Amino acid sequence: MHILVLGAAGMVGRKLVERLLSDGRLGTSDITRMTLHDVVAPKQPEKAGFPVETMAGDFALPGVAEKLIAGRPDVIFHLAAIVSGEAELDFDKGYRINLDGTRMLFDAIRLVGGGYKPRVVFTSSIAVFGAPFPDAISDEFFNTPLLSYGTQKAIGELLLADYTRRGFMDGVGIRLPTINIRPGLPNKAASGFFSGILREPLAGKEAILPVGDDVRHWHASPRAAVEFLLRAAELDLSLLGARRSLTLPGVSVTVGEQIEALRAIAGDKTASLIRRQPDETIARIVAGWARDFDPARAKSLGFRADANFSAIINAYIEDELKT
Amino acid sequence: MHILVLGAAGMVGRKLVERLLSDGRLGTSDITRMTLHDVVAPKQPEKAGFPVETMAGDFALPGVAEKLIAGRPDVIFHLAAIVSGEAELDFDKGYRINLDGTRMLFDAIRLVGGGYKPRVVFTSSIAVFGAPFPDAISDEFFNTPLLSYGTQKAIGELLLADYTRRGFMDGVGIRLPTINIRPGLPNKAASGFFSGILREPLAGKEAILPVGDDVRHWHASPRAAVEFLLRAAELDLSLLGARRSLTLPGVSVTVGEQIEALRAIAGDKTASLIRRQPDETIARIVAGWARDFDPARAKSLGFRADANFSAIINAYIEDELKT
Repeated sequence: MHILVLGAAGMVGRKLVERLLSDGRLGTSDITRMTLHDVVAPKQPEKAGFPVETMAGDFALPGVAEKLIAGRPDVIFHLAAIVSGEAELDFDKGYRINLDGTRMLFDAIRLVGGGYKPRVVFTSSIAVFGAPFPDAISDEFFNTPLLSYGTQKAIGELLLADYTRRGFMDGVGIRLPTINIRPGLPNKAASGFFSGILREPLAGKEAILPVGDDVRHWHASPRAAVEFLLRAAELDLSLLGARRSLTLPGVSVTVGEQIEALRAIAGDKTASLIRRQPDETIARIVAGWARDFDPARAKSLGFRADANFSAIINAYIEDELKT
Repeated sequence: MHILVLGAAGMVGRKLVERLLSDGRLGTSDITRMTLHDVVAPKQPEKAGFPVETMAGDFALPGVAEKLIAGRPDVIFHLAAIVSGEAELDFDKGYRINLDGTRMLFDAIRLVGGGYKPRVVFTSSIAVFGAPFPDAISDEFFNTPLLSYGTQKAIGELLLADYTRRGFMDGVGIRLPTINIRPGLPNKAASGFFSGILREPLAGKEAILPVGDDVRHWHASPRAAVEFLLRAAELDLSLLGARRSLTLPGVSVTVGEQIEALRAIAGDKTASLIRRQPDETIARIVAGWARDFDPARAKSLGFRADANFSAIINAYIEDELKT
């Protein structure tokens, strides 16, 4: 099995690749080849039991998508995206990468022909939803994104479903919860503080909290994200029918509950490193975001959330701070 | 007020233009100029109290959208589309016109700048919905189109909302019911038979019914469609908030009820001209279509359906057969 990962140098992409290299298989199939792409070169794995090609560049330039699928990958993980904050600041860049790039990838697949029909796992986002909504959003609630990023993801979902229906691919879109705790440096996502208020204090640093303690949001650990991707890649997609995108399970907590979980695990001194500094712009954006879901469909298909928010913090400590 | 109509040579476009020429105004504003565009040249009106420019061509070619809005129209009716059957048969053409063309129009508007922010009335479709769904679809039900046409319309709605949110236009999407009775020749829409089984018998001709009598669908007359367009053009869109597309009111009837209404108005002999000839392909497509809605939001904003299906037939007889 040949696997292509777009966005392989990103945080979730790296963890997915590590896992695939470690497993050496996906579902019941042995991996025989991998192609890793990102705008910056993904790290070349030191040890791999099969050939791994790394490619760097802009996948939304003409001809690049064709090159990416020239090796006819059986499974394509499409994780590449301009994140929410940047897509909001740079209108053209967001649409060019998130919409045009995705469509160029799908079209390159379509134009191969000859029965080529890869599994495509597309990472969508809960940003396809926008307020007002019920406390727990059902699987049949409509998509009314309030950011260009969410708009582009919702369009990607529509294209994925139509290209799948037409027989060009076997696609599945997974709406990832906000990933928490993101290791490393902050990215340009407007949701960055949800991780920052935990990651920075755990490193002994001060963190800024730009919204109120009562803000509720929907979270999953990087571990859960990798499991979601693997599940989506091996799932019998005929179970999905025409509705190819799934809201995934997550943990719904308030910022206050996040902080209390941090305090219980790491102590008062750590929790006291969070400095409240309200930011009207971020608060306004976050007010439009989903708080809780009833992801019955994904649950019935075997997708599993983290046990609770403490488990999310402990996973970060184990995976990132004890190595 | 300068009005641009895209798709002005189509059935609804022609009726809209006639009405605008006859009224000489839109809402409380006098019309001072009109620009009419279609792939074939719209008819040059014989009498108009203001300049009317007609343009023909492919609006999805580079540079055409810029020319269309060079005169800075205050209101843009975007009715241009490849219809469902043709978009299904010609994948590239459907995406090029319905998605790329719409986006090129919106981008041309966006790039004018300098505070230019026209009203854009985008004709969407109930094809943004796909089975299975509840008997009456609510305003918050999700979009899961089962045709490329519906996919393209759903994407157009998402773009419209995002471009409006970013301040580039004042957009409103209206999901027209199936228009019935369509005068003239059949078009390539898969829904064509809903009109054909009435129009052809009323002209003394045989008509083919490819689906069962129990098929329920959602209808509006051309008269209602024109009223919807005018209402959307004059409505205070701040009432819509971020959710810029509306399912419009219609008349929900079965094919059997359509035929009984025809029989009551035109007699047994006319109704007997309908020949049942099941078509599996059309039946399969139609099985995925919406049957009934609860369009509470559009109703609260003053959009009105035809009184019943008999009124729809009588409007056709008055407008098309008595002139």
